[in-house]
Amino acid sequence: MTEQPSDLHAAVSALVRSYHAAWNADDLDALCALFTDDVHWVNIVGMHWHGRAEVEQAHRAFFDLMFKGVSSHLEEIESVVQLSGGEAIAVVRLRMDAFLQPDGIMKPESVDRMTLVLVPTGNGLRIKHGANIWVVPEAQPFNPVPSRN
Amino acid sequence: MTEQPSDLHAAVSALVRSYHAAWNADDLDALCALFTDDVHWVNIVGMHWHGRAEVEQAHRAFFDLMFKGVSSHLEEIESVVQLSGGEAIAVVRLRMDAFLQPDGIMKPESVDRMTLVLVPTGNGLRIKHGANIWVVPEAQPFNPVPSRN
Repeated sequence: MTEQPSDLHAAVSALVRSYHAAWNADDLDALCALFTDDVHWVNIVGMHWHGRAEVEQAHRAFFDLMFKGVSSHLEEIESVVQLSGGEAIAVVRLRMDAFLQPDGIMKPESVDRMTLVLVPTGNGLRIKHGANIWVVPEAQPFNPVPSRN
Repeated sequence: MTEQPSDLHAAVSALVRSYHAAWNADDLDALCALFTDDVHWVNIVGMHWHGRAEVEQAHRAFFDLMFKGVSSHLEEIESVVQLSGGEAIAVVRLRMDAFLQPDGIMKPESVDRMTLVLVPTGNGLRIKHGANIWVVPEAQPFNPVPSRN
């Protein structure tokens, strides 16, 4: 189910590495340059931002508030599915360092699965949609598909 | 940022209504007929299922375990973005009735934001990707984009 042209996988890998390089350098200019103008983003607690201005405002605010110096580590590009116009749907598993939430509670190191819809541009793939889901550790033993545990 | 042809919005609406009708009737045959063969699904606690066989196995198991008789209510199709091949990326906000989690804890009524990537077929749109995120109530006051609060 993860069959795709190897060049598409390479392009997804390049985008994901650019994302992590920008994130881990606290470089919001580079990070936000990866979004299309009409990007939508649903973050890990379900906030939905519409368009690059909102997605950028939110990311800059959350870096100022809690993400500066907090690294994200790429674990695996779990799947890449190609759409008819050369777009890709990817699921990326990443590990976030611990960070202090806005409510004052420290979230320990955690794993996320991020869905990205990526579109080809003259500068490589860009992010048209992101939806980032926390992999809740306590829930995983109840996965009904044993091979995915 | 939600500009799209009205016929695409109508097609998304039809798919989303079929999804809810099937869900609320506990009709797993109808629900799973909405998935493409190569669907990927990331559920609300971060489980990632690859392909229709796994997605169907997981949904059937979770209906047996906890979702039978638990209704999902469509609140709003918040955005529909068209891709070049006629595919759509939609964000759907829905409200789930309370249900008993596998760990024995009752999850109270909750709101989710579900990202769907939908592809055109001879039978209307079908689901090629789903990523479902819980809208954590306690986190929403910290949304840095005031208009989205």
